[in-house]
Order: sequence, then structure tokens, then C-alpha cells
Amino acid sequence: MRIAILGTGMVGNTVGTKLIQLGHEVMMGARAANNPKASEWAATNGDRASQGSFKDAANFGEILFNCTAGSVSIEALKLAGAETMKGKILIDLANPLDFPQGSPPILTVSNTDSLGEQIQRAFPEVKVIKTLNTVNCEVMINPSLVPNDHDIFISGNDQEAKTKITEILKDWFGWKSVIDLGDITSARWTEQLLPIWLGLMNLYGTPRFNFKIVK
Amino acid sequence: MRIAILGTGMVGNTVGTKLIQLGHEVMMGARAANNPKASEWAATNGDRASQGSFKDAANFGEILFNCTAGSVSIEALKLAGAETMKGKILIDLANPLDFPQGSPPILTVSNTDSLGEQIQRAFPEVKVIKTLNTVNCEVMINPSLVPNDHDIFISGNDQEAKTKITEILKDWFGWKSVIDLGDITSARWTEQLLPIWLGLMNLYGTPRFNFKIVK
Repeated sequence: MRIAILGTGMVGNTVGTKLIQLGHEVMMGARAANNPKASEWAATNGDRASQGSFKDAANFGEILFNCTAGSVSIEALKLAGAETMKGKILIDLANPLDFPQGSPPILTVSNTDSLGEQIQRAFPEVKVIKTLNTVNCEVMINPSLVPNDHDIFISGNDQEAKTKITEILKDWFGWKSVIDLGDITSARWTEQLLPIWLGLMNLYGTPRFNFKIVK
Repeated sequence: MRIAILGTGMVGNTVGTKLIQLGHEVMMGARAANNPKASEWAATNGDRASQGSFKDAANFGEILFNCTAGSVSIEALKLAGAETMKGKILIDLANPLDFPQGSPPILTVSNTDSLGEQIQRAFPEVKVIKTLNTVNCEVMINPSLVPNDHDIFISGNDQEAKTKITEILKDWFGWKSVIDLGDITSARWTEQLLPIWLGLMNLYGTPRFNFKIVK
């Protein structure tokens, strides 16, 4: 499959490289083509890896991963272009986190709205799926780094797209339990897990943990 | 031990009755003495159960449980009185939830503040401990209703009080895993679990589930 990775940070690198290993063609998109980090990633990931602008990548990919920082996601997706993304699935991995100096991390949108919803409202013809945002990027693509059973959540308005991405989470990345929380408004529930996630990471000294719902 | 239950709802009833069963003396406090629900609870729970005003109960109890609705907790605690509660441990079980007509439940305080912090700021000489607010009241006092291992969180500024309440959670209620998240600012992390908790309750059709951190 042709896949777009939007963003050149650690999340984009980790997910993009895993997708290459799975045999897919992956274009990493940045604000402008020939971004040094995207170019380096493409150069070290073989023939099926390429790089371009956000728009190039969004045009190339059948499925798009939003791996940009939450604070710049809307802006990056505008550069990708509503028309380019129209009808495609956008998997939103980002969280609207801010780290103000001298105070604990906060969410820049929460409670009555979420980044997932903001993206869906800004691009109504894109099938926005919020998932994987509650785990570290290494765990996203290799859930067995956390032992035993644990859960990943999925939110989105398009049921067919959610079913397809649930299969991808299971078949490509190895997730065993995917909990469908409902429409994109439930993105606010999982984005709100980030503050406790960050607290637990500080407590445990590792990002290799995850939530499980026990019942 | 002499214990105050502040609030006459389902949480106060459930926790108060469990404490009576454990052999403690429990006074249930309400806005005014002789509240019908508090009187009925006291009448059906034997000699060690009594009722009174919030102030009566706060005066009676060596440890206080805030079982009022989050929307009225500060007001109820003002009636209990800062001087009455001074130096005592207040276990805050409440959540700042609002259920606006026609829209999903929201938190009335979140992200940069929490009900736990508001209470601690309003009553600086009370040892506020936030815990048990992430489970249904039946699970609070009987965690074995949810099978296997799962976690409860605790937040508070006074380490000695947290140690004492951690022992109470384990010895009285049967909790096996109590995660100390840090000072009272971490109350915002657990209060923010309520929206996903409510979503999961709707999904599963039961409040008998809980979070576990897998690592």
C-alpha cells in the first residue's frame, strides 16, 4: 500500500520505518520537500521510502498518518490540502500537548473539544481516525514491548474506516485488543489520558507501559 | 475509628455501610441535621451509625470522606468548617462532573486545575487525599468485584496521610495495587479519567470495570 507519513519527528520515523519493513511504499512529508530529516529518513530506508512536501505525501498516500506535533497539526494539514486528502483516511496520532516553562504539561484543547475533532471539523471530507495516541511510538508499532494484555482505543465517525484501521492495528502492528470508543468526539477522552500518561512515565522512568481496561 | 461521611447519596451510603460493617463508628453529615436520607441510613445501620450536619460529622470524624457531588463539594465543606476539619484527613471521592442537556458529560474544572486542588486551596490546613474517584462506589469498597489485578490512584501533599490512607485502602477495602501519583496537582489526572470512564460504562453496560497500568 502507498502510505503518507506527515511529520519528521520520532513518531513519523518510527511508524514510517515499520511500514517500510512491512513492505509498503512510504512517503514522508514535511513543510517543504527536501527537508533534511525526511531526506535522511528516505535515504536510509531503501527504494520504497521517499520524501516530499506535506502535499506531495498526502497526494501519494492511500492512507495518511498525522505524526506532526499537536500544536502544528492543523497548519500542517492545511498545507497538505483538503482537496488532496478528500475521501482518504487520516490516522491522527497527535496530542494537543503544551509544556509551559515551570508548570506541568497541559492540553491546549480538552474537555469540550479535542484535536481529533478540530481536525475533523477543519477537513470534513477526510475520514479522521484517532488512535495510538495513548502509547509511546515504539509501543504503537510493537505492542509486545509491554507484556501481557493491554488495550488501544479508536475513535472516528466513519465505521468502515474504523473497521479497516482496526484490522491494520491488529495485522500490521500486532494489537490484540482495540476498543472502539465511538465517534470522533471520543478523541477528547483519549487525549485527556496524556497528562496521567506523562505522570506515570515520570514515575516509572520508562514509556513502556499501557492502559488496560479490566472487567 | 470515628469516621465522617459527608454526603447522603449512593457513594456515602455504600462507603458508610462498609465502614460500619468493618466495626467503625460512622456519622453521616448533610446540609442540616435530621436529613431524611441520612436519618434513614443511620436508622438501618445499627448503634454505631449516626447522623448530623456537615459540621457535626466533621467534628465527630477522625477521618472524613467527601462523598458530596463535585458541583457542591466546596460549599458543603465550608459548612463543615475549616476550623472543624483542621489537621484532619479528608478523602476526596468526588468528581467535578456536569451533565449538560443534549451534550456529553463535561468536567467543570480540568486540565490546569482540579476539584482536589480547589479543596486543598480552600482548606489549606486539611490533609486532602484524592483517591477512589476513578471507580464505581461498589468497586471502591470491594475491588474484587472486578476480576484479576487492577489499580487505584492516590494523590495528596501530605506523605504521612497518603501512607495511612494507602494502608486503609488495602486493609479495609482490599485494594492490592495503590499507585501514588504525587501531590494534589495529580488529582487533575485522575479526574480527567472520568469522561472515558463514563464512555466505557456506556459501552460495556456495567460500572464494574477498572483501569490497570500494564508495564
